[in-house]
Amino acid sequence: MTPNFNLWLEIDNQVAISIWRANLLKTIAATGSISSAANQLGIPYRTAWQKINEMESRMNLKLVETQVGGSHGGGARLTPAGELYVAKFNQFAAEVAQAVQTAYHNHF
Amino acid sequence: MTPNFNLWLEIDNQVAISIWRANLLKTIAATGSISSAANQLGIPYRTAWQKINEMESRMNLKLVETQVGGSHGGGARLTPAGELYVAKFNQFAAEVAQAVQTAYHNHF
Repeated sequence: MTPNFNLWLEIDNQVAISIWRANLLKTIAATGSISSAANQLGIPYRTAWQKINEMESRMNLKLVETQVGGSHGGGARLTPAGELYVAKFNQFAAEVAQAVQTAYHNHF
Repeated sequence: MTPNFNLWLEIDNQVAISIWRANLLKTIAATGSISSAANQLGIPYRTAWQKINEMESRMNLKLVETQVGGSHGGGARLTPAGELYVAKFNQFAAEVAQAVQTAYHNHF
Protein backbone atom coordinates (compact mmCIF):
# COMPACT_ATOMS: atom_id res chain seq x y z
CA MET A 1 0.00 0.00 0.00
CA THR A 2 1.07 3.56 -0.72
CA PRO A 3 -0.21 6.68 1.03
CA ASN A 4 -1.12 9.63 -1.17
CA PHE A 5 -2.64 13.05 -0.58
CA ASN A 6 -3.84 16.26 -2.10
CA LEU A 7 -3.34 19.63 -0.47
CA TRP A 8 -4.81 23.06 -1.15
CA LEU A 9 -5.52 26.46 0.38
CA GLU A 10 -9.06 27.82 0.44
CA ILE A 11 -10.35 31.35 0.49
CA ASP A 12 -14.09 31.61 1.21
CA ASN A 13 -14.42 27.83 0.62
CA GLN A 14 -12.90 28.09 -2.86
CA VAL A 15 -9.56 26.63 -3.91
CA ALA A 16 -6.92 29.37 -4.19
CA ILE A 17 -3.90 27.13 -4.80
CA SER A 18 -3.44 23.36 -4.85
CA ILE A 19 -0.71 20.92 -5.80
CA TRP A 20 -2.08 20.83 -9.35
CA ARG A 21 -2.34 24.63 -9.61
CA ALA A 22 1.13 25.17 -8.13
CA ASN A 23 2.44 22.74 -10.76
CA LEU A 24 0.73 24.78 -13.49
CA LEU A 25 2.53 27.91 -12.25
CA LYS A 26 5.86 26.04 -12.04
CA THR A 27 5.40 24.75 -15.58
CA ILE A 28 4.69 28.28 -16.87
CA ALA A 29 7.90 29.45 -15.15
CA ALA A 30 9.85 26.52 -16.66
CA THR A 31 8.49 26.77 -20.23
CA GLY A 32 8.17 30.56 -20.39
CA SER A 33 4.65 30.53 -21.81
CA ILE A 34 1.10 29.64 -20.88
CA SER A 35 0.48 27.70 -24.10
CA SER A 36 3.67 25.62 -23.70
CA ALA A 37 2.73 24.86 -20.11
CA ALA A 38 -0.81 23.87 -21.18
CA ASN A 39 0.64 21.57 -23.88
CA GLN A 40 3.04 19.97 -21.45
CA LEU A 41 0.27 19.33 -18.92
CA GLY A 42 -2.14 18.09 -21.60
CA ILE A 43 -4.83 20.68 -20.87
CA PRO A 44 -6.47 23.25 -23.16
CA TYR A 45 -4.88 26.70 -23.20
CA ARG A 46 -8.25 28.09 -22.13
CA THR A 47 -8.27 25.92 -18.98
CA ALA A 48 -4.76 27.04 -18.02
CA TRP A 49 -5.73 30.65 -18.53
CA GLN A 50 -8.96 30.25 -16.52
CA LYS A 51 -7.16 28.62 -13.58
CA ILE A 52 -4.62 31.44 -13.48
CA ASN A 53 -7.38 34.04 -13.57
CA GLU A 54 -9.27 32.22 -10.80
CA MET A 55 -6.18 32.05 -8.60
CA GLU A 56 -5.34 35.70 -9.17
CA SER A 57 -8.84 36.91 -8.46
CA ARG A 58 -9.28 34.70 -5.36
CA MET A 59 -5.90 35.75 -3.95
CA ASN A 60 -6.25 39.32 -5.20
CA LEU A 61 -2.66 39.03 -6.44
CA LYS A 62 -1.08 39.12 -9.90
CA LEU A 63 0.77 35.79 -10.28
CA VAL A 64 1.59 35.60 -14.00
CA GLU A 65 2.65 38.37 -16.36
CA THR A 66 2.44 37.97 -20.12
CA GLN A 67 4.89 39.65 -22.43
CA VAL A 68 4.55 41.42 -25.77
CA GLY A 69 3.33 39.21 -28.62
CA GLY A 70 -0.28 38.64 -27.62
CA SER A 71 -1.73 36.21 -25.14
CA HIS A 72 -0.83 33.10 -27.19
CA GLY A 73 2.24 34.28 -29.08
CA GLY A 74 4.15 36.10 -26.35
CA GLY A 75 5.94 34.66 -23.37
CA ALA A 76 4.75 34.49 -19.79
CA ARG A 77 6.54 34.44 -16.48
CA LEU A 78 5.67 34.51 -12.83
CA THR A 79 5.58 37.84 -11.05
CA PRO A 80 7.80 38.13 -7.96
CA ALA A 81 4.64 37.58 -5.88
CA GLY A 82 3.82 34.49 -7.98
CA GLU A 83 7.33 33.07 -7.51
CA LEU A 84 7.18 33.62 -3.78
CA TYR A 85 3.76 32.02 -3.55
CA VAL A 86 4.76 28.92 -5.49
CA ALA A 87 7.95 28.57 -3.42
CA LYS A 88 6.02 28.84 -0.14
CA PHE A 89 3.35 26.39 -1.29
CA ASN A 90 6.03 23.91 -2.43
CA GLN A 91 7.75 24.05 0.94
CA PHE A 92 4.39 23.60 2.66
CA ALA A 93 3.55 20.60 0.42
CA ALA A 94 6.99 19.03 0.91
CA GLU A 95 6.61 19.24 4.68
CA VAL A 96 3.15 17.65 4.48
CA ALA A 97 4.48 14.89 2.16
CA GLN A 98 7.11 14.05 4.76
CA ALA A 99 4.49 14.03 7.52
CA VAL A 100 2.23 11.72 5.49
CA GLN A 101 5.08 9.19 5.18
CA THR A 102 5.90 9.42 8.88
CA ALA A 103 2.26 9.11 9.97
CA TYR A 104 1.71 6.20 7.57
CA HIS A 105 4.63 4.28 9.06
CA ASN A 106 3.35 5.06 12.55
CA HIS A 107 -0.02 3.43 11.87
CA PHE A 108 0.41 0.79 9.12
CA MET B 1 -6.89 31.32 4.01
CA THR B 2 -7.51 27.82 5.24
CA PRO B 3 -5.41 24.73 4.43
CA ASN B 4 -7.30 21.59 3.46
CA PHE B 5 -6.29 18.13 2.29
CA ASN B 6 -7.43 14.76 1.13
CA LEU B 7 -5.68 11.54 2.08
CA TRP B 8 -5.92 7.98 0.80
CA LEU B 9 -4.10 4.68 0.53
CA GLU B 10 -3.50 3.10 -2.88
CA ILE B 11 -3.04 -0.49 -3.88
CA ASP B 12 -1.80 -0.92 -7.47
CA ASN B 13 -2.59 2.78 -8.14
CA GLN B 14 -6.22 2.34 -7.06
CA VAL B 15 -7.79 3.92 -4.00
CA ALA B 16 -8.24 1.35 -1.22
CA ILE B 17 -9.38 3.71 1.52
CA SER B 18 -9.73 7.49 1.69
CA ILE B 19 -11.17 10.02 4.10
CA TRP B 20 -14.52 9.75 2.29
CA ARG B 21 -14.51 5.94 2.28
CA ALA B 22 -13.46 5.75 5.93
CA ASN B 23 -16.38 8.04 6.70
CA LEU B 24 -18.75 5.70 4.83
CA LEU B 25 -17.55 2.81 7.00
CA LYS B 26 -17.90 4.90 10.17
CA THR B 27 -21.44 5.88 9.17
CA ILE B 28 -22.39 2.23 8.57
CA ALA B 29 -21.03 1.41 12.04
CA ALA B 30 -22.98 4.32 13.57
CA THR B 31 -26.30 3.73 11.79
CA GLY B 32 -26.18 -0.08 11.72
CA SER B 33 -27.10 -0.38 8.04
CA ILE B 34 -25.77 0.35 4.59
CA SER B 35 -29.00 2.01 3.43
CA SER B 36 -29.18 4.32 6.48
CA ALA B 37 -25.54 5.27 5.95
CA ALA B 38 -26.19 5.97 2.26
CA ASN B 39 -29.20 8.14 3.17
CA GLN B 40 -27.23 10.06 5.75
CA LEU B 41 -24.40 10.72 3.29
CA GLY B 42 -26.81 11.59 0.47
CA ILE B 43 -25.56 8.89 -1.91
CA PRO B 44 -27.45 6.08 -3.65
CA TYR B 45 -27.49 2.72 -1.85
CA ARG B 46 -25.88 1.23 -4.94
CA THR B 47 -22.90 3.61 -4.70
CA ALA B 48 -22.34 2.79 -1.03
CA TRP B 49 -22.50 -0.91 -1.81
CA GLN B 50 -20.09 -0.58 -4.76
CA LYS B 51 -17.54 1.39 -2.73
CA ILE B 52 -17.60 -1.24 0.01
CA ASN B 53 -17.14 -4.01 -2.57
CA GLU B 54 -14.27 -2.14 -4.18
CA MET B 55 -12.53 -1.60 -0.87
CA GLU B 56 -12.98 -5.22 0.15
CA SER B 57 -11.71 -6.60 -3.13
CA ARG B 58 -8.73 -4.22 -3.32
CA MET B 59 -7.72 -4.92 0.27
CA ASN B 60 -8.69 -8.59 0.04
CA LEU B 61 -10.39 -8.14 3.39
CA LYS B 62 -14.02 -8.39 4.52
CA LEU B 63 -14.87 -4.99 6.07
CA VAL B 64 -18.67 -5.04 6.40
CA GLU B 65 -20.97 -7.91 7.35
CA THR B 66 -24.66 -7.81 6.61
CA GLN B 67 -27.18 -9.49 8.88
CA VAL B 68 -30.32 -11.54 8.22
CA GLY B 69 -33.10 -9.64 6.46
CA GLY B 70 -31.60 -9.16 3.00
CA SER B 71 -29.13 -6.66 1.74
CA HIS B 72 -31.52 -3.67 2.11
CA GLY B 73 -33.70 -4.79 4.98
CA GLY B 74 -31.15 -6.27 7.36
CA GLY B 75 -28.55 -4.51 9.40
CA ALA B 76 -24.88 -4.19 8.70
CA ARG B 77 -21.85 -3.77 10.90
CA LEU B 78 -18.10 -3.61 10.51
CA THR B 79 -16.13 -6.80 10.88
CA PRO B 80 -13.35 -6.73 13.49
CA ALA B 81 -10.89 -6.21 10.59
CA GLY B 82 -13.06 -3.35 9.29
CA GLU B 83 -13.16 -1.69 12.71
CA LEU B 84 -9.40 -1.96 13.07
CA TYR B 85 -8.84 -0.57 9.61
CA VAL B 86 -11.09 2.44 10.14
CA ALA B 87 -9.47 3.13 13.52
CA LYS B 88 -5.98 2.99 12.04
CA PHE B 89 -6.91 5.18 9.10
CA ASN B 90 -8.56 7.72 11.41
CA GLN B 91 -5.44 7.95 13.56
CA PHE B 92 -3.34 8.31 10.42
CA ALA B 93 -5.63 11.08 9.09
CA ALA B 94 -5.71 12.89 12.45
CA GLU B 95 -1.91 12.93 12.56
CA VAL B 96 -1.75 14.29 9.00
CA ALA B 97 -4.40 16.94 9.82
CA GLN B 98 -2.24 18.14 12.70
CA ALA B 99 0.86 18.20 10.45
CA VAL B 100 -1.01 20.21 7.79
CA GLN B 101 -1.87 22.88 10.39
CA THR B 102 1.70 22.99 11.68
CA ALA B 103 3.25 23.15 8.20
CA TYR B 104 0.76 25.82 7.14
CA HIS B 105 1.71 28.02 10.06
CA ASN B 106 5.40 27.43 9.29
CA HIS B 107 5.06 28.78 5.76
CA PHE B 108 2.14 31.22 5.64
